[in-house]
Amino acid sequence: MADLEATVFRIETLHEFSTRVFLHLGVPKNDATQAADVLACADLRGIDSHGVARLHSYFDMLSLGRINPTPQIKLVCSTLSTATVDGDNGLGLVVGPQANRIAMDMAEKSGSGWVSVRNTNHFGIAGYYVLEALERDLIGWAMTNSTKMVTPLWGAERMLGTNPISIAFPGKEEPPIVIDMATCAVAYGKIEMARRRGDAIPYGWGIDSEGRVTTNPDDIVAGGALLPLGSDRERGGHKGYALAILVDILSCVLSGANWGPFAPPFALRHEIPQRSVGKGIGHFFGAIRIDGFIEVDSFKRQVDDYIRVFRATKPAPGTTGPLIPGDPERQAEQLRREKGVPVISPIVEDLRDISAKTGIPLD
Amino acid sequence: MADLEATVFRIETLHEFSTRVFLHLGVPKNDATQAADVLACADLRGIDSHGVARLHSYFDMLSLGRINPTPQIKLVCSTLSTATVDGDNGLGLVVGPQANRIAMDMAEKSGSGWVSVRNTNHFGIAGYYVLEALERDLIGWAMTNSTKMVTPLWGAERMLGTNPISIAFPGKEEPPIVIDMATCAVAYGKIEMARRRGDAIPYGWGIDSEGRVTTNPDDIVAGGALLPLGSDRERGGHKGYALAILVDILSCVLSGANWGPFAPPFALRHEIPQRSVGKGIGHFFGAIRIDGFIEVDSFKRQVDDYIRVFRATKPAPGTTGPLIPGDPERQAEQLRREKGVPVISPIVEDLRDISAKTGIPLD
Repeated sequence: MADLEATVFRIETLHEFSTRVFLHLGVPKNDATQAADVLACADLRGIDSHGVARLHSYFDMLSLGRINPTPQIKLVCSTLSTATVDGDNGLGLVVGPQANRIAMDMAEKSGSGWVSVRNTNHFGIAGYYVLEALERDLIGWAMTNSTKMVTPLWGAERMLGTNPISIAFPGKEEPPIVIDMATCAVAYGKIEMARRRGDAIPYGWGIDSEGRVTTNPDDIVAGGALLPLGSDRERGGHKGYALAILVDILSCVLSGANWGPFAPPFALRHEIPQRSVGKGIGHFFGAIRIDGFIEVDSFKRQVDDYIRVFRATKPAPGTTGPLIPGDPERQAEQLRREKGVPVISPIVEDLRDISAKTGIPLD
Repeated sequence: MADLEATVFRIETLHEFSTRVFLHLGVPKNDATQAADVLACADLRGIDSHGVARLHSYFDMLSLGRINPTPQIKLVCSTLSTATVDGDNGLGLVVGPQANRIAMDMAEKSGSGWVSVRNTNHFGIAGYYVLEALERDLIGWAMTNSTKMVTPLWGAERMLGTNPISIAFPGKEEPPIVIDMATCAVAYGKIEMARRRGDAIPYGWGIDSEGRVTTNPDDIVAGGALLPLGSDRERGGHKGYALAILVDILSCVLSGANWGPFAPPFALRHEIPQRSVGKGIGHFFGAIRIDGFIEVDSFKRQVDDYIRVFRATKPAPGTTGPLIPGDPERQAEQLRREKGVPVISPIVEDLRDISAKTGIPLD
């Protein structure tokens, strides 16, 4: 979003502000810090849409009592390696980390742990959870559904969220491979950027309200939808659609949350769905013990080798060759820890609005 | 492949022929039947590239002693819910089903089971394994790596297999949702069809040997590569590339098999890689007990509802609306069980060649 004026904040400033805002809204101290950690992770890693950019939505939802600041998070079903968690309509930024810890604890005991979560809300970036697993030498998985934004292939309306999948693998000397990807072709933020600039968008990003592929970003905002990864039938759009279903069923049908078009909105401006088929939205976490398969050191050395072999791929013309998943986010984090986090002016205004309403200073 | 002359065979004929060919090559009776089951599943479900079309390759590899007809399949590492299996260089069509059974047995005891497999060979269609899990009311996962064919995004050479992901969810009154998808934009078979017809291929399917996106199918065959799902950076090609890595690491690095460009070939015409970084190729199987999360009947009724809601999506112009993953394969199976399996003439010639060499009658 380099085309908008930005103010640079130290990550500590944003973290402190978010923590105090959550505290102000009745979130207990540890939970407030936890929630701010997840937001800061997004802001550091350059996933600007999922960091403090979301704070005003959380502020609104908590202020209006639509999110429970003091949830009683409960295990409602479990085996040695699986569990369902009810998040009691808490912040996803609090319910998610706790459910993820349950999955990791199970993995340490039983080799793997798989937790489906209902009655929760937006959980921040999926990547946060798999980075937590890396700290414990586990391979972590994270998925979540979200407010409808994406059409199924051959559909003409929003039916699915951007339903991300994340997984990470640790290296020994090399940094980890960190996959964190929405299952649609492009992030909604890129539609908004093109719209602001008055640019056309590439073929394959979205459809208009009649289901026609469009290159006008206004069409997508005005009742259209994003397309799944693969974009059209010829290039595999049915596969991106299938991945979105995979995430939706593991996160929601398995836990008893609202799936597909019935996901409740995470912001006030979104309409509330006509039907409810479960409780809240849903997440799905997994954790696998590497030494449940192979010696950890040997695995990590192979991952190092893997990374080096793929970096040495002959490059396509006009590129520097393949990246390793997680490279851009790691580079953003290095830069932002040092130089600070650029926050674009509409988001700064949001934060100042919260500051004015709560009396919590931003600077 | 409707543009080639085809002969129609009853599935029982193809199954019987495959079984006898495997027996002839020293595969024990139960294993021969099992291997033929997996091939027949592909032929019935319309995945023509993975059924008897592959029999000549298995015939060659077994005849030359490059696949072990009587493997001692071994568990080399395990916890309550994870295991590594060494396939002793057996047929993937035999090692795969056995490893999948280990995953399913674990799931019944521990809630979930996850098995990574090394020292194995091509395992047929990934969909076979998740259909087996459905028979036991489990949610099954299956993945495998394969001979290099796909470039990483921004690469100019083949580094990854078509690395499929499969998962299935049972309905109650509705048929199951069965996802079985390669992580590249399009199947190699479609390149071959376009080439035979002299047609151009769509933008986004593949690159030439210099890494340029091409619409000439000859370029892909002559040293080019397929592109990952998403095709280019703008439309999310980095995501398809990341999914291929996910499959590769779970199947190969976790088990100790050959990953990436080092996957050994499944047919004689492919070159043998310069380096070996493990044993054979790798698979990854998972099984999850539904009642480890939620009551099974309630889950299945929600899946029915899910299917009906998605079928009722407003259709895009010129389409009949979204399909449910598994629809085309189920329709093919109904038709082929009744009317027989059309086998194109080059494959019929392959089968007649095996028949001539072994004395096993085809009709």
